[in-house]
Amino acid sequence: MKTPHDPADDALPAPAHARRVLRMRAGALGQVDDVLIDEVPIALVYNGISHAVMMATPADLEEFALGFSLSEGLIADPGQCYGIEVERGAGGIAVHLEIASGAFMALKERRRNLAGRTGCGLCGVDSLDQVCRTLPALPPARGFTASGVRRALAAIGDHQPLTHRTGAAHAAAWCGMDGVLRIVREDVGRHNALDKVIGAMARGRVRPADGFLLITSRVSFEMAQKAAATGVAVLVGMSAPTLAAVDLADRAGMTLLAFARGNDFVCYTHADRLDVGAG
Amino acid sequence: MKTPHDPADDALPAPAHARRVLRMRAGALGQVDDVLIDEVPIALVYNGISHAVMMATPADLEEFALGFSLSEGLIADPGQCYGIEVERGAGGIAVHLEIASGAFMALKERRRNLAGRTGCGLCGVDSLDQVCRTLPALPPARGFTASGVRRALAAIGDHQPLTHRTGAAHAAAWCGMDGVLRIVREDVGRHNALDKVIGAMARGRVRPADGFLLITSRVSFEMAQKAAATGVAVLVGMSAPTLAAVDLADRAGMTLLAFARGNDFVCYTHADRLDVGAG
Repeated sequence: MKTPHDPADDALPAPAHARRVLRMRAGALGQVDDVLIDEVPIALVYNGISHAVMMATPADLEEFALGFSLSEGLIADPGQCYGIEVERGAGGIAVHLEIASGAFMALKERRRNLAGRTGCGLCGVDSLDQVCRTLPALPPARGFTASGVRRALAAIGDHQPLTHRTGAAHAAAWCGMDGVLRIVREDVGRHNALDKVIGAMARGRVRPADGFLLITSRVSFEMAQKAAATGVAVLVGMSAPTLAAVDLADRAGMTLLAFARGNDFVCYTHADRLDVGAG
Repeated sequence: MKTPHDPADDALPAPAHARRVLRMRAGALGQVDDVLIDEVPIALVYNGISHAVMMATPADLEEFALGFSLSEGLIADPGQCYGIEVERGAGGIAVHLEIASGAFMALKERRRNLAGRTGCGLCGVDSLDQVCRTLPALPPARGFTASGVRRALAAIGDHQPLTHRTGAAHAAAWCGMDGVLRIVREDVGRHNALDKVIGAMARGRVRPADGFLLITSRVSFEMAQKAAATGVAVLVGMSAPTLAAVDLADRAGMTLLAFARGNDFVCYTHADRLDVGAG
């Protein structure tokens, strides 16, 4: 179900590499081959200005750049991104984005306000009052069912090759309301996996009301904010949520499920969108 | 074995909160109480300048601030930090650090070089050539044994109350070479848990040659870099490492073990420090 990688990614290093390592198992030490996930510095450069560097898995980088731009509110819609070019260098990979002048002016203004200071942990944020952003109104998103969640959970494992090979990746998936996986992406970072799916959704002109996001990781504040910022009304996480994520989902009007495994889950917010009996 | 929290933290919110939630289990839906981990924006302010904001668990914040300052190379030793004050606000928590003028000049210079740009993902980094830092020479760290690793692994679970309550925390521990846990800290973020331990080590005047660091999470590039930057010669992770982390450990001369569970582990670099027979 994974859509094809962008041809621009073909020149990049494979996202996993074999290494000879020393393994202790059942009391015996032996040399074995291990597969390690790649984690490369990726610089996002907007109209020539380097804005952010993240450690990420070097695959699906155009989708990553587009998704990050949308989920962090640097552009308001995909049409504000005119072009993306991936440039591989010695110290990492630079992804150059050409964005609309209005969005670029806003980005420059946002950076001017930072006044030579540098953000950390949260993207482009260096003081407390910048943490919470204004989020869009979310769609009703009808047709979300417990059986759809079960179906997506049953399928996701077959679409995580990097996780199976390296044990070090997270996946994010865009699912139809029926639980069919439409887009799946993996990355060493859960934020990056989510941004890659958001970028692929934008490219595929997906309507956020038509499905839900599934993430294999925990649901942190930033993950919930990225989902809500792109108009997604239902977010399902396989591991635990944080209090800040639950509070944000509550305020944003987003339905948040977590600890979703097998047939089980916990619904934290806006259970009115959930149809338990259907399917 | 957890050392006492700083009294300054007593005024802060507890790191976990109960919420009434809707749980689907074994096909039945019911209301239950769930405990959620706290995740709060923490701003680190150096001599009055806000440098970074991170989402973290509001406990052990003085240790967090000190450890972050050391592991990110903002100060060279704990003596360059003259004082730390925690200030709770409406939008989050500000931790004010008073640092030596030499360190502050270097920080201002570093920020001036960023020229109004903002880093993201990597602390204070916005272009590719700033990712890899110069790391100190690491000590021989004699006495590291497979039995010490086993002992630490067997004990760590009893020192993760936040993890047990919320399912959403990572732990980091400083262990003697005998595997006894000396310092354990938890946080919603693995980088934060590690920084808290590094801060507690600095306060306790721990000699990095006398033990090893154990982390319950994956070993990413940044985790390995934080450990090596503070002179720790042996890092043990319970989950997978990344290729970039292994390469950094190799270059830095750090012994890196990962997939450490029960009696098993994989040694990725500098196995010469590991005594398999002892104990």
